[in-house]
Amino acid sequence: MSINIEKIIQDINWHIEPTNLYEPIGYTLESGGKRLRPQLVALACEMFGKDPQTIENVALAIEIFHNFTLLHDDLMDNSPTRRNRPTVHKKWNANTAILSGDAMMIKSYEFLAKIPEKYWVKVFPLFTQTALEVCEGQQLDMDFEARRDVTIQEYFEMIRLKTAVLLACSLKMGAILAGASDEDQKLIYDLGIAIGIAFQLKDDYLDTYGTFETLGKRIGDDILCHKKTFLLLTALKDANEQQRNRLKSTIESTTQTDSQKIETVTGIYNELNIPNICEVAINNYYLEADKLLQKISVADESKTKLKTLIDKLKIRDK
Amino acid sequence: MSINIEKIIQDINWHIEPTNLYEPIGYTLESGGKRLRPQLVALACEMFGKDPQTIENVALAIEIFHNFTLLHDDLMDNSPTRRNRPTVHKKWNANTAILSGDAMMIKSYEFLAKIPEKYWVKVFPLFTQTALEVCEGQQLDMDFEARRDVTIQEYFEMIRLKTAVLLACSLKMGAILAGASDEDQKLIYDLGIAIGIAFQLKDDYLDTYGTFETLGKRIGDDILCHKKTFLLLTALKDANEQQRNRLKSTIESTTQTDSQKIETVTGIYNELNIPNICEVAINNYYLEADKLLQKISVADESKTKLKTLIDKLKIRDK
Repeated sequence: MSINIEKIIQDINWHIEPTNLYEPIGYTLESGGKRLRPQLVALACEMFGKDPQTIENVALAIEIFHNFTLLHDDLMDNSPTRRNRPTVHKKWNANTAILSGDAMMIKSYEFLAKIPEKYWVKVFPLFTQTALEVCEGQQLDMDFEARRDVTIQEYFEMIRLKTAVLLACSLKMGAILAGASDEDQKLIYDLGIAIGIAFQLKDDYLDTYGTFETLGKRIGDDILCHKKTFLLLTALKDANEQQRNRLKSTIESTTQTDSQKIETVTGIYNELNIPNICEVAINNYYLEADKLLQKISVADESKTKLKTLIDKLKIRDK
Repeated sequence: MSINIEKIIQDINWHIEPTNLYEPIGYTLESGGKRLRPQLVALACEMFGKDPQTIENVALAIEIFHNFTLLHDDLMDNSPTRRNRPTVHKKWNANTAILSGDAMMIKSYEFLAKIPEKYWVKVFPLFTQTALEVCEGQQLDMDFEARRDVTIQEYFEMIRLKTAVLLACSLKMGAILAGASDEDQKLIYDLGIAIGIAFQLKDDYLDTYGTFETLGKRIGDDILCHKKTFLLLTALKDANEQQRNRLKSTIESTTQTDSQKIETVTGIYNELNIPNICEVAINNYYLEADKLLQKISVADESKTKLKTLIDKLKIRDK
């Protein structure tokens, strides 16, 4: 099966009144991104036996919801750019970002309700629960910025909620629409959690070790925003006293410039072999995903496309 | 039938993790208000033959959604108080107001999904459409603040979306849950639009002619925020050239104090008999509501409670 999700997204007409409400939604959605979640819905559905008409609207609902979270997160983080373009609150203003985001979230429910009614009873509660969990994850992420005692375990719970549950939900939605068994639905959900955690670990990694050109956003934001990333938490755990003190004083410094802070912190990460530790952790989650994929009760050849996508995610640099 | 909506709202447990996400929701919901929308759900349902178990969650969903809109609107308007207490963005901060508001909106869908599945197909699309219209109304309201050429007709379309559709939706939800005919559902929806418009006209009136003690918020905010209210638009229409110039220069003045502005504008309203014109307009919408109520195909005695509520709304001072 193949659905051209990019075309479907670009074809939605947002040139409707009031334009100040809907134009920023079109602007947010047209700017691309990986469309990973719609791909997951489609691949899961195809793996279990497809029903393209029903996939399309669920895929759209999830992609619109995901972009809503980016819109509001960018405002809360005061991020100036996203995908090489000004964020909505920079191009318009904060109120536009708030209200267009709200409308976007409601729109995601509107698209969800376009699927045949027989699926509603499974799809609506999963979507709502996932959406709430994403908010909880974002809240924990913000809470952690002000805390100095975040554990690595708490970090994993945060990224499970903030990132992984929506990928898991996407896969499970595809499985539901294809009529997969409850057991396979659970396996593919857990697989989504594993690749979601790996995905977020890679995001943390790229925020420090990626490039502006590839990512389309500032490098080192996490360091400047006191984000408790896997990199920082592992560094704090592994550091000797002198390194730990340098890390803490640099991050909390009010006299160092942004680039000085990024350079110093990255230097300590390198001393502590953090890039490699992070890569090993990412790899372990992908191995876990592979194991779960093997357990799913469909023929191996049906799993190829999802396997290929997972392999691509492993080596992404943006 | 009677459901104690206040008790049901107060009994929801918001003391859950992450507390920074859910506590502001509890704070927003516990602070009372008229609970008008849940009352409308219940009264409509009772009028057509009740089913209390199903009313409760729809009433909660709508009340939570309504309070979500207040939370985000207060942030966008930068209002310092609501119901005599600091608004969420003042008590916490803007990010808390954004994210807790988002979670609140999703929660409203969660409560909606608690009603029996057989109602979903009617209830979900109505709720989603109404929620989008409320966003559109809020957008128009903000657009109007920057415009100088808003017509009274545009104003009525804005308040229909911003305020009336949610009251109409509340009544129609009650009718749907009670199994009312399509025609009666339409009549009660239109009745809701009429009392909704009357309700917003009264809100406009009270923003200038109410008291801080009764309303729990600053008087004259609409004047200071350049809101295109029924009062202002009617005054601009009815004013002579000298009055119109005084109105415009006062509202846009950067040298006058807030209280000078409010005093001058209110003075011109009084010269032009605006309070009386506003009261007549409000009354006409209530007469329209009465006519629609008469057309609904249930016995007159079943209509008494809704009639009593409408009569109460007519004379409210807060």
